[in-house]
Amino acid sequence: MPLSEFGLIERYFRGCGAKRGDVRVGVGDDAAILECPAGTELVAAVDSLVDGVHFPHGSPPASIGHRALAVNLSDLAAMGARPAWALLALTLPRADESWLSEFAAGMAALARDHEVALVGGDTTSGPLCITVQVLGHVQRSSAMLRSGGQPGDALFVSGTPGDAAAGLAIEQGRLPADGEAAAYLRDRFLYPAPRLALGECLRRYADACIDVSDGLLGDASKLARASGCGVEISHRDVPVSDALVRAVGEERARELALTGGDDYELCFSVRPAQVARLLAELPPERWGYTRIGTLRESPGADVFRDGAVMSLSHSGYDHFG
Amino acid sequence: MPLSEFGLIERYFRGCGAKRGDVRVGVGDDAAILECPAGTELVAAVDSLVDGVHFPHGSPPASIGHRALAVNLSDLAAMGARPAWALLALTLPRADESWLSEFAAGMAALARDHEVALVGGDTTSGPLCITVQVLGHVQRSSAMLRSGGQPGDALFVSGTPGDAAAGLAIEQGRLPADGEAAAYLRDRFLYPAPRLALGECLRRYADACIDVSDGLLGDASKLARASGCGVEISHRDVPVSDALVRAVGEERARELALTGGDDYELCFSVRPAQVARLLAELPPERWGYTRIGTLRESPGADVFRDGAVMSLSHSGYDHFG
Repeated sequence: MPLSEFGLIERYFRGCGAKRGDVRVGVGDDAAILECPAGTELVAAVDSLVDGVHFPHGSPPASIGHRALAVNLSDLAAMGARPAWALLALTLPRADESWLSEFAAGMAALARDHEVALVGGDTTSGPLCITVQVLGHVQRSSAMLRSGGQPGDALFVSGTPGDAAAGLAIEQGRLPADGEAAAYLRDRFLYPAPRLALGECLRRYADACIDVSDGLLGDASKLARASGCGVEISHRDVPVSDALVRAVGEERARELALTGGDDYELCFSVRPAQVARLLAELPPERWGYTRIGTLRESPGADVFRDGAVMSLSHSGYDHFG
Repeated sequence: MPLSEFGLIERYFRGCGAKRGDVRVGVGDDAAILECPAGTELVAAVDSLVDGVHFPHGSPPASIGHRALAVNLSDLAAMGARPAWALLALTLPRADESWLSEFAAGMAALARDHEVALVGGDTTSGPLCITVQVLGHVQRSSAMLRSGGQPGDALFVSGTPGDAAAGLAIEQGRLPADGEAAAYLRDRFLYPAPRLALGECLRRYADACIDVSDGLLGDASKLARASGCGVEISHRDVPVSDALVRAVGEERARELALTGGDDYELCFSVRPAQVARLLAELPPERWGYTRIGTLRESPGADVFRDGAVMSLSHSGYDHFG
């Protein structure tokens, strides 16, 4: 006998994630009631994952639950915000208890890691689609925007972009790979780590930030455009993981790092006068970020290699492109 | 040439709805930044509409946009909260500009009516599914919950439930009807009016409230259960519209009023000592609500007709039932 809609929500999502004292009413009433701390602004993001579009059909349910929350947490990380609460709208073709249990466990584990409480939800029948909305806080007027960059700013990226795109290709059987490198890359696609701790610290140094979800080059361009600038990226400075180089070679690794999607890293710009302080106070080798280029006055985005502008086939992932 | 995903969001949803001074960053960055008023709690709700499940395939896009927002505003109305901001996650099979333009216009008109600003969005390709999340405020500790009812409370409902269920049946060609009554009923399904003004006022009188979305009897039962009570509803007191009676006859009208869905009315309970004050200060003929029954100690939900308990085929709509 299938569980009722109401039973589903209650059973798997009540008490999912962290317990928080600022949740006056959580899952189970018409809406959630939440207490915002004084002196902060509310930060809100929403993102959907669609079966077969944002993850391969048949992906591990725990990964889908993890990613649905992670992509939103990454948006908050890019603002330098601290997440607090999440709401889930889940459309699924049928009430499959084992699927739901793994999905909820994947989401709950990441939620607990970042002290996020699931405070509301809606479950409906239909083609598999997961929409999560995350709410958090940032100290008043301290959020990083995409638009705060200036010509001359140093541009950085966290982590090693491109791994997730290779991991997805391995998941889909488009890239033959096995062993440790393949396992690492698949994990980078299936369980991305939103850079929340880095984002919160960066508010003291960066003047603009964006999360890298549609490809580093495309997202760096968006940051530059929002800031009224252009951007130059140094090909040889784009960080790539050993695993990615092992799986696809160095040439293709840098291409994936520039144009692959699903990284959920942070790309941020720092005024020249702040760079030394950033490097001293948040050591790159500990915090995992790399300088990759510079914002410039003239618009557009160019990748320089051996002094020449490279031509790249595409500059970011566009669902309708 | 299809518009790009980013172009879509920008073009149709930037500046959608009301302009509000408390939106520091709206659509266009990684997340929205919002200012919460002092002395209030944040109220958050999320609901999805799926093509063919929550509205007939081929519904007018303006109605889909209206309803996607209305069902969430109704959740806030049930808490007595005032809405402020909305976020939209839109999954659609292709970038159809005429569809998007009408959808956005339908959502924007309702948003402006209730001073709601659209502050964030995500557009993805996939089967048509619309998830809206609404954020609002309520004065600290003043929200109405489902759980505040007590045995002996008078139970009320706003408006005339059942209209929307008949309107949907007419839309789907399951109920033959035309003329003024049919137009009224279709409109009640396509463009429901969330009872926000009533909800805000009710905080001073009601001890429990729920929005009626899955059928009056089922939702009244939920309120009673959350309050640790049962409920008795008087069949002849259930309000029905003239149009509904004209379309389906009085017997079927009351059945639809009790078990149909998509009403987005408010069902609320009031302590006996508060009833006279409610009726005097919010005159029912002006505010449009009716007493339909009483909360009782013994659990369960019964409809009484001529002194006997009625048997009803189902007690609410359950997507997985």
